[in-house]
Amino acid sequence: MKLAVIEGDGIGREVIPAAVEVLGAFGLELEKVPLELGYARWERTGTAMSEEDLDTIKSCDAVLFGAVTTVPDPSYKSVLLTIRKELDLYANVRPVKPLPGVTGVTGRNDFDFIIVRENTEGLYSGIEEIGPDLSWTKRVVTRKGSKRIAEYACQLAKKRSDKLTIVHKSNVLKSDKLFLDVCRQTADAYGVEYNDMLVDSMAYSLMMHPEKYDVVVTTNLFGDILSDMCAALVGSLGLVPSANIGKKYAFFEPVHGSAPDIAGKGVSNPLAAILCVKMLLEWMEKPESRLIDDAIADALKKKVITPDLGGKASTSEVGCAVAKYI
Amino acid sequence: MKLAVIEGDGIGREVIPAAVEVLGAFGLELEKVPLELGYARWERTGTAMSEEDLDTIKSCDAVLFGAVTTVPDPSYKSVLLTIRKELDLYANVRPVKPLPGVTGVTGRNDFDFIIVRENTEGLYSGIEEIGPDLSWTKRVVTRKGSKRIAEYACQLAKKRSDKLTIVHKSNVLKSDKLFLDVCRQTADAYGVEYNDMLVDSMAYSLMMHPEKYDVVVTTNLFGDILSDMCAALVGSLGLVPSANIGKKYAFFEPVHGSAPDIAGKGVSNPLAAILCVKMLLEWMEKPESRLIDDAIADALKKKVITPDLGGKASTSEVGCAVAKYI
Ligand SMILES: CC(C)[C@H](C(=O)O)[C@@H](O)C(=O)O
Ligand SMILES: CC(C)[C@H](C(=O)O)[C@@H](O)C(=O)O
Repeated sequence: MKLAVIEGDGIGREVIPAAVEVLGAFGLELEKVPLELGYARWERTGTAMSEEDLDTIKSCDAVLFGAVTTVPDPSYKSVLLTIRKELDLYANVRPVKPLPGVTGVTGRNDFDFIIVRENTEGLYSGIEEIGPDLSWTKRVVTRKGSKRIAEYACQLAKKRSDKLTIVHKSNVLKSDKLFLDVCRQTADAYGVEYNDMLVDSMAYSLMMHPEKYDVVVTTNLFGDILSDMCAALVGSLGLVPSANIGKKYAFFEPVHGSAPDIAGKGVSNPLAAILCVKMLLEWMEKPESRLIDDAIADALKKKVITPDLGGKASTSEVGCAVAKYI
Repeated sequence: MKLAVIEGDGIGREVIPAAVEVLGAFGLELEKVPLELGYARWERTGTAMSEEDLDTIKSCDAVLFGAVTTVPDPSYKSVLLTIRKELDLYANVRPVKPLPGVTGVTGRNDFDFIIVRENTEGLYSGIEEIGPDLSWTKRVVTRKGSKRIAEYACQLAKKRSDKLTIVHKSNVLKSDKLFLDVCRQTADAYGVEYNDMLVDSMAYSLMMHPEKYDVVVTTNLFGDILSDMCAALVGSLGLVPSANIGKKYAFFEPVHGSAPDIAGKGVSNPLAAILCVKMLLEWMEKPESRLIDDAIADALKKKVITPDLGGKASTSEVGCAVAKYI
């Protein structure tokens, strides 16, 4: 098993070393392949990621990724989006689950759901035209793309409480009818109970009744918006991990970005990155993954927490504490 | 002054009569033109709204609108979207402000901002193609469309605290760069202080730090999602009004939909519709509009509230109480 380790930019360079320390504590046979890419490298060399880098990544089985800064500059191609595409990582999986003793903006902790975001099409099609007076982007929904994400979500639902919520906007986007129909058919085929929600109503409902949901499947940008929003339920963007899964590869990335405002101070919260390690171990089907929950609970109880959670610990102190427990 | 009154479907038929009663209490010279349209009518007659209806609406100055049920059925054309388009109602204005004594999911009430949503283009372009294996919708951004919404938002900011937040996703949608650039240029021209946020970060930030925002300007579907989400900050979808404003016409509509689940029971909350009356009076530049705030505060204090707020009053009882105060 080979794991590419990409710290990227900003706080990626702080949280990934902490996560790597935690991973090390499991003593697995695992070759780590460090790669330096991202915006900082683009600024320095004009290339954020070379063909060679991509080949190296493809020679690995999985990727642990920090964050890269993205910019509107049309000449800068997002590393993250390129990797998602090249590795055909079609499922972006984002668990939304409270950590013990940490409350989010609503003060409640009776929820535990997973957002499964289609990760290859929708508004991320890249089919666009820029003009001085008119610009457009094509939002693409395909049967194939909808089917495989629906299947992923249904398989996940089968392992959980067998409940699926399909999120769309087919009252306005007639193209979303295809997504909705395929998800419904797939859920029927899997025998998974389902309902569907319009994305605007869902944004409201997730805030009002997060306990209602189990597996939520949606298109690319809706998943992007809803999952960031749901980080507020958990308490901080620094607490939510994500997995980008394909048929062959898997890629693990905290939902927070490179956070240039706090980068370099060593105070960024590594828990999302550490939870990415948990998702990696789950993907590797290692039951030890559960230890991470216990270790995090222990660190939280002992108040070894970063300033965003009201603590005084540094990024590496949190990493150490979790690794030590394991 | 002529006002078209459209109850529409579901709870629209309950909340609009309550709002009309409140409007009546102001004793203004105002001709009301009732119109029956929507999904129920479509089911019965095959037309949700005729050309003649549209002409009648265009002969009025403003519209007070309840809700219409929308369905994915491609042969059903949304009344709401048709009116927005035909009347060129380019600014969808949604104030997010707590009501006295009512707390939303975050328990805080230190915020007061307005979402200004571009209301004619973006993903609502209607340019789409449906196929069995591939469907798409064009997300359109024009300089003209961006400019007029930016101007609206800047004028509003000038009347408030001179602060504008531009919400976009130009790190992925290169077409959103046009929207962002035009908004920035316009804010510069108006001398309005501004910042910009990616839509996903904004969804998170609005939940975490709603107090930071004043006027928020964004594209069509982003505004749709964010404003529904923000109803959770206020406490209920039943509490948020909206105005659809054009150069010539204005159209007032509660953000909640037709809510078929509770329709017909007389328990729907009319406060959003009543706040629409307030927005109508503001649009008519009537300073008496402020009375509505006082009247609502009084009803809330006396617990004349509907079940969604924990009360026992019916829709019409709330309407009566507010009208009586005025
Ligand atoms: C950085 C950006 C391109 C990315 C996205 O929009 O997918 C991010 O927001 C995410 O959710 O991983
Ligand atoms: C009903 C629907 C077409 C509409 C929209 O998407 O604009 C609604 O959600 C709104 O926000 O007014």
